[in-house]
Amino acid sequence: MAITPIVQEEPAAGPRGAYRKSAATRERILDAALEVFGAQGYDVGSLREVAALAGISQAGLLHHFPNKVALLSAVLERRDDRASEQTAAASPGIETLGALVDYARISALKPGEIELFAVLSAEATRPEHPANSYMRRRYEWVTSIAVESLTTARDQGHLKPGTDPTTMASQLFALWDGLQIQWLLKVNNVSVADGIEHFIDLHLVKPLRELLQS
Amino acid sequence: MAITPIVQEEPAAGPRGAYRKSAATRERILDAALEVFGAQGYDVGSLREVAALAGISQAGLLHHFPNKVALLSAVLERRDDRASEQTAAASPGIETLGALVDYARISALKPGEIELFAVLSAEATRPEHPANSYMRRRYEWVTSIAVESLTTARDQGHLKPGTDPTTMASQLFALWDGLQIQWLLKVNNVSVADGIEHFIDLHLVKPLRELLQS
Repeated sequence: MAITPIVQEEPAAGPRGAYRKSAATRERILDAALEVFGAQGYDVGSLREVAALAGISQAGLLHHFPNKVALLSAVLERRDDRASEQTAAASPGIETLGALVDYARISALKPGEIELFAVLSAEATRPEHPANSYMRRRYEWVTSIAVESLTTARDQGHLKPGTDPTTMASQLFALWDGLQIQWLLKVNNVSVADGIEHFIDLHLVKPLRELLQS
Repeated sequence: MAITPIVQEEPAAGPRGAYRKSAATRERILDAALEVFGAQGYDVGSLREVAALAGISQAGLLHHFPNKVALLSAVLERRDDRASEQTAAASPGIETLGALVDYARISALKPGEIELFAVLSAEATRPEHPANSYMRRRYEWVTSIAVESLTTARDQGHLKPGTDPTTMASQLFALWDGLQIQWLLKVNNVSVADGIEHFIDLHLVKPLRELLQS
């Protein structure tokens, strides 16, 4: 199923060639922001460092993103867009659960992004943090997607009796977050994707892979 | 079972009255550090603010803790000491699992401490962070305690067939961490203690509470 991003973006204006060049610069800034915020946290990472890493002036950066919060929002939005593309083809139910596990597997190729999200999720628990409301909405949003798919799976007889879709959905994302911390810390030989697949299997009458193939 | 803290402390010297006064100041500094680091993260929180909140001069603070890393270590150590006290009376197996759930329930009374740990666990995933090796050792340590108790529980026939103590221990602490984030963000109506008890119950042949009473 399609995961629609929360943060909406205005379509960029301007002639085609200039737009393409501008879009490429924008991507370069977002990559740099991901690296700087991912390595140092959002609070400590500075726009100066992001500009330097992207190879543009700070004025050039401010032309694209007027402040740090706008830059952070764009980084989050791009990640949500990509997650959306990853899972767009799956229908609600078992297929979406499989797509989530696949997404976790692909995410492991981008440790910088995972680090940014791990630090940001924790930092943003402070009500005054600029990403606080984004994070709250994001958890509610991903939880609601999982609840929908788990309810479908339950109605199709795939869940073990007594499994509550809401509790399971909240625990699934909690486990995901916590496994990422262990994975980043390199403890317990953790694979995030294997871990959440194992957790899903605990609640199914048959393993996920088997259900996906039948 | 006893949870022995990783960070060892030198016994404080000096005459009894002065020691007691000094110990009280030390506690006040640690409370202040918990609040400052918990609210702002370790990276951003400053010794100046900790000293101000504790009501002493910065020179006074430096007399107790020569630098920020020493202060952070003492905060972590005190928390481990208290966790150790909480679980010291439980014997390995089901009883220790119950003590962990109880500890989660008591921890919910100290959101500042949970916030510090949530932010710190994420920040400390960077290898150059001063708490990186502490966090790695702490995860290995708490995991080993849980593995010991889960192995005992398995040998006593309390675990469902096919449950691997090592995987379950790693997932238990991952879930714990992730539920704390949701709890701090006030999403999904999460209770950390209920969540981990529910997860433990998923793996037991009978609910934990029932086993503890029998």
